[in-house]
Amino acid sequence: MTPTRPTQAVPNTTVAEILERAREAVLPAMRQAVGQLAPNIRQLVSYHLGWADAEGHPCSAPAGKGIRPALAILSAEAAWADPQVGVPGGAAVELVHNFSLVHDDLMDGDLERHHRPTVWALWGTGAAVVVGDALATMATQVLLSTPNPAAPAAAAALSEATAEMIAGQADDLAFESRRSVSVEECMAMSTAKTGALLGCAASIGAILAGAPPATVRALRDYGRHLGVAFQAVDDLLGIWGDPATTGKPVGNDLRQRKKSMPVVAALAAGDDEAKELGQLLTAEEPLTQEQVERATWLVEACGGRDWTAARAKAHLDSALGCLERARLSAVPRRALADFAVYVVERES
Amino acid sequence: MTPTRPTQAVPNTTVAEILERAREAVLPAMRQAVGQLAPNIRQLVSYHLGWADAEGHPCSAPAGKGIRPALAILSAEAAWADPQVGVPGGAAVELVHNFSLVHDDLMDGDLERHHRPTVWALWGTGAAVVVGDALATMATQVLLSTPNPAAPAAAAALSEATAEMIAGQADDLAFESRRSVSVEECMAMSTAKTGALLGCAASIGAILAGAPPATVRALRDYGRHLGVAFQAVDDLLGIWGDPATTGKPVGNDLRQRKKSMPVVAALAAGDDEAKELGQLLTAEEPLTQEQVERATWLVEACGGRDWTAARAKAHLDSALGCLERARLSAVPRRALADFAVYVVERES
Repeated sequence: MTPTRPTQAVPNTTVAEILERAREAVLPAMRQAVGQLAPNIRQLVSYHLGWADAEGHPCSAPAGKGIRPALAILSAEAAWADPQVGVPGGAAVELVHNFSLVHDDLMDGDLERHHRPTVWALWGTGAAVVVGDALATMATQVLLSTPNPAAPAAAAALSEATAEMIAGQADDLAFESRRSVSVEECMAMSTAKTGALLGCAASIGAILAGAPPATVRALRDYGRHLGVAFQAVDDLLGIWGDPATTGKPVGNDLRQRKKSMPVVAALAAGDDEAKELGQLLTAEEPLTQEQVERATWLVEACGGRDWTAARAKAHLDSALGCLERARLSAVPRRALADFAVYVVERES
Repeated sequence: MTPTRPTQAVPNTTVAEILERAREAVLPAMRQAVGQLAPNIRQLVSYHLGWADAEGHPCSAPAGKGIRPALAILSAEAAWADPQVGVPGGAAVELVHNFSLVHDDLMDGDLERHHRPTVWALWGTGAAVVVGDALATMATQVLLSTPNPAAPAAAAALSEATAEMIAGQADDLAFESRRSVSVEECMAMSTAKTGALLGCAASIGAILAGAPPATVRALRDYGRHLGVAFQAVDDLLGIWGDPATTGKPVGNDLRQRKKSMPVVAALAAGDDEAKELGQLLTAEEPLTQEQVERATWLVEACGGRDWTAARAKAHLDSALGCLERARLSAVPRRALADFAVYVVERES
């Protein structure tokens, strides 16, 4: 397969076009990396990525939007490099992202992703553990086999972000069985769980381009704020999103008693409705459909929905501020800004 | 904590002394790495490593022998470097080894290790997944934060070995539900699962010492053969070992229907006793204690025990041959040879 050379960012490109261009640019690197996995692991990874069905026959199933590869490529261009420079970074971050999805689905007991059974649901715990482990390891291999003198620094940045993401996931897991979680703890968890890897995606292209530390830092901070905004929107969609669009069952997060931003903010209101919500979410028995609906109403009545939407907007503004601060190439800077707005306005 | 400077290898040191010296040399680097983990992950890692009890109180519980750190340090010295040069490699390989133990215990459903409950048995699936992920990531961080120009090459070698180990674990898992596994498949799995990481341990010190490729290759091949010999002995102990010494229940491997070397070799005998063994190991119901004892007898009667012991001896000889081939410093070369003999003669 001949690697596709990504076209450069041009003015007035839509976010859909940016995502499409990044997916195409990173796909050959992803295919090459996955092709190096042992056959029995490769088959499960191909299924997870939407490239094959459960029997291993090639298909084109719905998968992720590819937000991280797009950020990695724009980040290289924002640092005045060729988009191709960001490709190994985009592939590596996407591999880490997918490792986290496979392990998270197992830990959260989620049966479906993008309307398809998850890896653990189809093949069991052991398979999901192994597939995630293989993806995480391959991410480091992709970067450390890249003939770019900045590749070890990029690998170090990715490891650091991965460690932070794992710590965030550990907190998220611990919060589910805790009675109370403060708003600060919840925001710190979201920054670690989602912000760290988006911060890495948004700066790894600049690292590979050999950009100065201040540029790398500004792009990383942009990505971290974007990540928190992204998580806020994800948490809103996890309660009020349209299941047909998000691919997740309605009320899923409440049913799992996830201490997501809207819930934590609502519980912090401290009034009678917050107390009722707290009782619902700490009951021994699984929630009925009616209770899930009542909890949904209570979260909104306690201001959890508005508060979370305001956090999304505030972190979007901070992300845009980081772009203004940095010395970046104009066209990719504009694309990164459009990207941030898209992330907050998306409905899936 | 002031890092302990490891003493250099001296003639006529026993293997117990070599292991002790390596444990002491690598401990500060391990403590520093674990200290950087998020508190809720750190507590579980400290428990797993035998540094703390389940409540987080410091203790000194039995843990691994530290074979991999010892190999890493001897490998630096064999390449005429200071033992300290091998320390980050020893710590990183030990972290990867422990990541694999935590995930393997979960995948295999093992409830105890070193006479203590395993991480998943105490804290559940999610915790075990997260702890393993954090250890694996920390291994890369340790190497990529080492101020040694050869550190990225060491990290690349470790990632490659980790990927091979994971593929071996995937095969091991798949073999349990397969009716038949060939002797060749079983040996390839053991080479991947155990040989790859021991090969990395035995060469990573030389990589960090900037040794020529031929030296690195010879040490890696020594470690790979040692790994297969180690696995052969492990498989023998998994059936005939003294539970008081190994820390694992008797007949554990047979009860789990593990396609370990003795079993696969016995099944390959093809006679009536092999057929009886095959029927026992494919029965729907869990094996009774009597059936486990019968299976143990059958594996021996079919020659599985002798065959495996012969493989251990053959790979020991190959390992020693690799040491002869390479241009190595004499004292650590002698220690590496003693080490290989110890691994094959050990009883736990």
